[in-house]
Amino acid sequence: MAATRPYVIGLDLGGTNSVFGIVDKDAKIIAQTSVKTGKDDPETYVNRCVEALKVIINNVGGIEKIHAMGIGAPNGNFYSGMVEEAANLPWKGDVPLARMFEVKLGIPVVLTNDANAAAMGEMKYGVAKGMKNFMMITLGTGVGSGIVVDGKIVYGSDGFAGELGHVIVEKHKGRQCGCGRKGCLETYCSATGVARSAKEVISTSEVETKLREIPLEDITSYDVFKAAMDGDPIAQSIYEFTGRLLGEACANFTCFSSPEAYVFFGGLTKSGDLLMEPLRKAYDENVLRNYRGKTKLLISALDDASAAVLGASALGWDIERAD
Amino acid sequence: MAATRPYVIGLDLGGTNSVFGIVDKDAKIIAQTSVKTGKDDPETYVNRCVEALKVIINNVGGIEKIHAMGIGAPNGNFYSGMVEEAANLPWKGDVPLARMFEVKLGIPVVLTNDANAAAMGEMKYGVAKGMKNFMMITLGTGVGSGIVVDGKIVYGSDGFAGELGHVIVEKHKGRQCGCGRKGCLETYCSATGVARSAKEVISTSEVETKLREIPLEDITSYDVFKAAMDGDPIAQSIYEFTGRLLGEACANFTCFSSPEAYVFFGGLTKSGDLLMEPLRKAYDENVLRNYRGKTKLLISALDDASAAVLGASALGWDIERAD
Repeated sequence: MAATRPYVIGLDLGGTNSVFGIVDKDAKIIAQTSVKTGKDDPETYVNRCVEALKVIINNVGGIEKIHAMGIGAPNGNFYSGMVEEAANLPWKGDVPLARMFEVKLGIPVVLTNDANAAAMGEMKYGVAKGMKNFMMITLGTGVGSGIVVDGKIVYGSDGFAGELGHVIVEKHKGRQCGCGRKGCLETYCSATGVARSAKEVISTSEVETKLREIPLEDITSYDVFKAAMDGDPIAQSIYEFTGRLLGEACANFTCFSSPEAYVFFGGLTKSGDLLMEPLRKAYDENVLRNYRGKTKLLISALDDASAAVLGASALGWDIERAD
Repeated sequence: MAATRPYVIGLDLGGTNSVFGIVDKDAKIIAQTSVKTGKDDPETYVNRCVEALKVIINNVGGIEKIHAMGIGAPNGNFYSGMVEEAANLPWKGDVPLARMFEVKLGIPVVLTNDANAAAMGEMKYGVAKGMKNFMMITLGTGVGSGIVVDGKIVYGSDGFAGELGHVIVEKHKGRQCGCGRKGCLETYCSATGVARSAKEVISTSEVETKLREIPLEDITSYDVFKAAMDGDPIAQSIYEFTGRLLGEACANFTCFSSPEAYVFFGGLTKSGDLLMEPLRKAYDENVLRNYRGKTKLLISALDDASAAVLGASALGWDIERAD
């Protein structure tokens, strides 16, 4: 049944900011607000959010106009509606965020993790529009993923499917990961990973590079990007290494669900061909023959600021309600 | 709509034999026959099959009693109904096997690859009964896989999803695989892989092992199994190595679809704890914290001879027909 109410709310819950958008059926964000995520307990946080939300809800005609709300949050679990043990958020244990918003707002609320929300956004409004099988790979501080099979997000047995950033890609002498294991994809192919590669090269060799002008601990992936664009061969080789590793990893991922496309999103994709060229090359060289030449490697065309909110809001449209 | 006809046909198409079973709604194989797969062209092969089938079809009351037919075949593609470029079969190119049987028999026919058929069998009749999310791993000459998400086999964009035997698990100095790439899981964790490990140890070291009594080229995984059961430490270490590698690989696979269980099937599972103990240990040590303690590692309880036929036949029940 098509939703009769004209709007949904999307919430992109980040470690620093919580951004809300009221979105219409044409994926236009017609009203927006945000609060600092902060260090409050969940109850106080939700109250602050609802206060800010009420203003924009009234501006669009009141809660009667809102069909539902979708939340994208780190460690958000679609099945339970909870944010579970999220390392980047101030809350301990499992927080039933979907239910807390439902009670306060009086509309249905669903929640998923941020990468799954991004995948929803791509499928409904982005470069994956019309695709039934694709993988979303978010390259930010960490590496997130949302896997779409047969037009639906893969949630798995417990709601935690799609953690491709924690596939171990270096079994031997892999980098220490925040998850406690070693060699995870995100220790190499995230923004943090790129900075780490630079620090590693600088501190373990004598090679000449502009990056030495920056205090070691301050180097960011953006510094490496700028140096690479300026022709610094070491900085270029770091992007080459990063792209190759990601391409090899994706070639393996394809054995799982043979996606029509990979959609890359997030800070690191701003480096464009610097990342994508070695990525494509390594993918083509490493993918199983059956799949060769079939899979598109795409960069998201949604802009960072609205993609997460749109993705979260897209979840809202999938909720059935009778009134 | 429930099928009104009482039986389905299952075909397990192997490199050597093609085994047919007529199966009732209680998963009982009520009639069985087989032909040599042989080297004939597809047309002649199908004619031979149909001739053999007619005898058992008549025995159960004629084709009017048969709802549909399911085929499990190497490189079988569910979407196209074709066997596509199968290395172990004598046919060149793509063979529209489902349609060929449909025309000859006058019933609907579906086809999938052998590991997907095995997964169907486990889901309908085996240890995965009632599960919505699990992975089937077949450990035979090669390593095959069938991935079930949300109660359905994952076919992906082209019908070739679920080739986990070709995930590259050793990037550095990996073993040459039949697929042309190096380091694929199946070069280590198949029956062939175990024999290869034995040959490698014997030919590159001076270690003492009973396996030296066997001509190098003749060593099979069963020889390694027997030697291990006899207390040969080298043979034991080979199973240890194999199980560990498979456990590490499965720990990575869990990041995709967070399955409720892995179901292992095929020759190599006959080694029981010799394989499963190091497998479980490596899995537990390597899986991401979110998933720890959640996933069952099971050996199929279906017997080899009937599992493939039952699995293929299970596909038949999923076909809708009006009459």
